Amino acid sequence: MRAEILCIGTELLIGQVVNTNATWLAQELAAAGVALHWVTTVGDNPARLSEALRRAAERADWVITTGGLGPTADDITVAVLAELLGEPLEERPEVRQHLEAYFAKRQRPMAASNLKMALFPPSAELIPNPAGTAFGLALPWRDTCFVCFPGVPIELRAMWEDWARWRLRARGSGIIQSVLLRYVGIGEAQLAERVADLLEAENPTVAPYAGDGEVHLRVTARAPDGEEAAALLAPVVSRLQSIAPFYYGADGCTLPVAVGQLLKQLGQTVATAESCTGGLVASRLTDVPGSSAYVWGGVVAYMTASKSSVLGVPPELVQSRGVVSEAVAVAMAERARVVFGADWGIGITGWASGGPGVEPADIGLVWLAVADSTGTVPECWRFGDLPREMIKQRASQMALDLLRRRLNACLAPGA
Amino acid sequence: MRAEILCIGTELLIGQVVNTNATWLAQELAAAGVALHWVTTVGDNPARLSEALRRAAERADWVITTGGLGPTADDITVAVLAELLGEPLEERPEVRQHLEAYFAKRQRPMAASNLKMALFPPSAELIPNPAGTAFGLALPWRDTCFVCFPGVPIELRAMWEDWARWRLRARGSGIIQSVLLRYVGIGEAQLAERVADLLEAENPTVAPYAGDGEVHLRVTARAPDGEEAAALLAPVVSRLQSIAPFYYGADGCTLPVAVGQLLKQLGQTVATAESCTGGLVASRLTDVPGSSAYVWGGVVAYMTASKSSVLGVPPELVQSRGVVSEAVAVAMAERARVVFGADWGIGITGWASGGPGVEPADIGLVWLAVADSTGTVPECWRFGDLPREMIKQRASQMALDLLRRRLNACLAPGA
Repeated sequence: MRAEILCIGTELLIGQVVNTNATWLAQELAAAGVALHWVTTVGDNPARLSEALRRAAERADWVITTGGLGPTADDITVAVLAELLGEPLEERPEVRQHLEAYFAKRQRPMAASNLKMALFPPSAELIPNPAGTAFGLALPWRDTCFVCFPGVPIELRAMWEDWARWRLRARGSGIIQSVLLRYVGIGEAQLAERVADLLEAENPTVAPYAGDGEVHLRVTARAPDGEEAAALLAPVVSRLQSIAPFYYGADGCTLPVAVGQLLKQLGQTVATAESCTGGLVASRLTDVPGSSAYVWGGVVAYMTASKSSVLGVPPELVQSRGVVSEAVAVAMAERARVVFGADWGIGITGWASGGPGVEPADIGLVWLAVADSTGTVPECWRFGDLPREMIKQRASQMALDLLRRRLNACLAPGA
Repeated sequence: MRAEILCIGTELLIGQVVNTNATWLAQELAAAGVALHWVTTVGDNPARLSEALRRAAERADWVITTGGLGPTADDITVAVLAELLGEPLEERPEVRQHLEAYFAKRQRPMAASNLKMALFPPSAELIPNPAGTAFGLALPWRDTCFVCFPGVPIELRAMWEDWARWRLRARGSGIIQSVLLRYVGIGEAQLAERVADLLEAENPTVAPYAGDGEVHLRVTARAPDGEEAAALLAPVVSRLQSIAPFYYGADGCTLPVAVGQLLKQLGQTVATAESCTGGLVASRLTDVPGSSAYVWGGVVAYMTASKSSVLGVPPELVQSRGVVSEAVAVAMAERARVVFGADWGIGITGWASGGPGVEPADIGLVWLAVADSTGTVPECWRFGDLPREMIKQRASQMALDLLRRRLNACLAPGA
């Protein structure tokens, strides 16, 4: 079975919105063993939308559209489809009721324009929206089926999960199973050379990608069923997971998740003291469900004086060594442990951008430290003159990785 | 002039990577007055890539590709283009030198596979890469020009800025100027009804979009030059900016930027005390260049006990009112001010997910408070059972907005 994704909305063509829907749908299609060869984006233009729908219908069994189902004048998906099929638009009472109930429950007035969302061609099957106002639709035409969702990601996902996922999996022929392996501390080409023989293989395939401060290998197997796919994947994945100390997790196991698993395994806790990362390490750690079991807290000691007043780093240390220094990073990590009573402390101080008193060559200079009761390990990184948010992201990445390596050493002291 | 974007990479079709390049390029094209009607994504498949290149070449003056220029076997863009033009691949000495120098500077060994990136068809003009290894290329063919960049966003952007931006602006006919206006605290349909007459207009156009915890209006004018475009935009933008208290900023002026501008205007400072948002508010505030002038710091009081031990919230208050309560949010905001010696304090406590002791109906319940020397204002929000990261994002949004509204009241006490 082949599917094609058609994303509708001028906001995508003027760059106002990042197309995360295409990414999410692509993951769903891969998981269902459905081939996806094309993703197309068109604006709110009836002629081009009609052309894109026709062309996709020639190539795919399911044409999945996102966007253009809302209440405003530029929402044209249903009207263009009705025109293509030569059908009229008729109000569906159940959708009208849904809309009225939706606004009543939230004690908000319903703008009359919302009733546009109750109009559908007669041959459309409705797809209920548990998370918002706009219903979706499924519309068979010639050899294809148009399956249309709103562009709001949370609505699309809820509707897909309720309506589309099992229908699609029941129709897929064979399956594509894939594992994403995550590495930190090694470059893409360097990792690719270490596994060069696997990159030539046909089934499973192995493909390297550069991530944000890390590198990924995607291992993908095609097989008639899940058991065979798993058997194809197992030996390759096992070899790739042994690339130490760089390999850290698979699929959704991001670095904060991996660190959290190690902390839970050891029954230990962590606290942070951040300067240039401004709370990003704490925020990433607490993105993980269940993190309240091991994140005791953190201090964002952004103003220099607060490193002493709130964290208790000796002011003379800051004075003599400089605010971005090994000594201050070490003291911050150690004070974070003490202030929150945690097993581990992370300290980060660096220059995320230029300013008075910052040497241009020092932009992107970051000192990290990770402390526990046995001692404190510092590291120095130079990320260069990157945008502020990238320096924050990379510094948070390397701080979490330093903690990960120390936690691993606790679990396997001989390794 | 018409351009078309072609994004190349199987990682995009299996949903591993979000296509932020398409968004960024679309913004650049709009700013240059270049029409973009199609964005297409294809995988690392020679036949389909060749078909996509041919089709795009029929419709556009510039076909801009991203991806497939790297050192690994699935990087096929240059080879497919050479095949399409019937040209051989030849090594360019200047690229080889660039590669050798790149690795030497970083004291890293150069994997031999990197030399693939020095091969180009003879008619290609090279596009230097100041941020990485893979050069781009510009290749005229029939009535079009293929302009090819690597898929790594930071490299693409640096190369575009150096090589493409001024060439494109010199070729564009007339310009498209557009302003994004940002609103918080009002729904999309509600805002659309308030400006219904403007949504019908042709030049400038006004289009509403739902953002992440906010709503945007995009105002777009077409004109022969910048002066005329600005004159078309001015009256409409001015009317839309008067929608108080919901309008808060334009274009890149995100909520943390808007709050920072108000704080700088008043010469005041802020500190945070966060529980369920885990440092996200501090991190968003410190994403803004220059934020060290007004962000004094923050505490992530994630463990309940740390709300008392680090922040100094009375333990009996937490005990009697509950950790997620108006009283605790107020105390956190007030203690944040005091602990850091800042003018303003933000306090946030809530349930970002379920767990022992959390009523299912209370998931997404968040108490916020903003304190200054004149008093503390609390607010209660129910975001519902959303994914953890969405609850964090929305809570951070409403906390920043509460501070924004209080800062505005200081600047215009009569309004």
